[in-house]
Amino acid sequence: MSEPTNLTEKTLSARPAYRGKLLNLDVLEVELPDGRASQREIIRHPGAVAVVPLLPDDRVVLVRQFRSAADQVTLEIPAGVLEPGEDPEQAADRELQEEIGLHAGKLERLGGVFPSPAYTSEYIHLFLATVLTEGSLPRDEEEFIVIERLPFADVLQTALAGEIADSKTITAVLLAARKLGR
Amino acid sequence: MSEPTNLTEKTLSARPAYRGKLLNLDVLEVELPDGRASQREIIRHPGAVAVVPLLPDDRVVLVRQFRSAADQVTLEIPAGVLEPGEDPEQAADRELQEEIGLHAGKLERLGGVFPSPAYTSEYIHLFLATVLTEGSLPRDEEEFIVIERLPFADVLQTALAGEIADSKTITAVLLAARKLGR
Repeated sequence: MSEPTNLTEKTLSARPAYRGKLLNLDVLEVELPDGRASQREIIRHPGAVAVVPLLPDDRVVLVRQFRSAADQVTLEIPAGVLEPGEDPEQAADRELQEEIGLHAGKLERLGGVFPSPAYTSEYIHLFLATVLTEGSLPRDEEEFIVIERLPFADVLQTALAGEIADSKTITAVLLAARKLGR
Repeated sequence: MSEPTNLTEKTLSARPAYRGKLLNLDVLEVELPDGRASQREIIRHPGAVAVVPLLPDDRVVLVRQFRSAADQVTLEIPAGVLEPGEDPEQAADRELQEEIGLHAGKLERLGGVFPSPAYTSEYIHLFLATVLTEGSLPRDEEEFIVIERLPFADVLQTALAGEIADSKTITAVLLAARKLGR
């Protein structure tokens, strides 16, 4: 196979195939780099934030929740979807307050990831939150979660052992470890 | 908020909202742990494999490709979707042959992740591939990719610096680093 230097596909048309509450699905007609036509099924997602909240005693605040799509209870860092026009830092603090009742005095960006770039536009902004104080926003009533506070070293170990199923949690914890020099 | 010990949602019904080539989207009516009803939009995905192919000279084979959903060219480890009934190890070797033309003499499991458990059932099996030899399967003609061979240490550094956008690639490289004692 030749290795083309131009890899970009041109989108010829986009057909809305599903419009929902969280997800929109479009079917794109694209022109491949060699001029042939192909189709792509794409989830349009508003983007998200995920936050590693680190307490002064070096424990991380995590949430356990049931995920229908994964058909299991997962252990994840607090996370949520961006609201229209919302700044990622603002969203990070809002999600912390809604999910675990804490406000972040300090937010540091850890980077960002596409969880599944083959078919979803979702981009997750990752943060480390410290200087945590009691939040002022109401807790989200729709979320059934159990809060866990675990030592950072244990969470890192668990992530490295491949024992955390949620991809963004592994990535964010490993990036936080690097920032913290662990 | 109380912290219920039973977090599991009961699926009351599933309505197929979209049926496509790669993706199926269902809208579920669920019963929350407190008995109230809610809705979930779920992508049904066949699952995937992603592989860190490590050459004897300690270089990793990566692929650059355009991702419509992310609207950018990404740097990723070889990966692909499971075929019906296919064993993940078989799929890992098939994808290596189709994408980079190499057969894995040795495949070691690194774990697995849900890239976005909030709305997709996709589960990615992660592998480290070594003892690489020339593949016998034909290369996939539909994929426009550029193959890159980069030293493992550089890829690890890039992943840790938050400079890789693809979540599975970061996770797999970091898990491989641990297995290899780097």
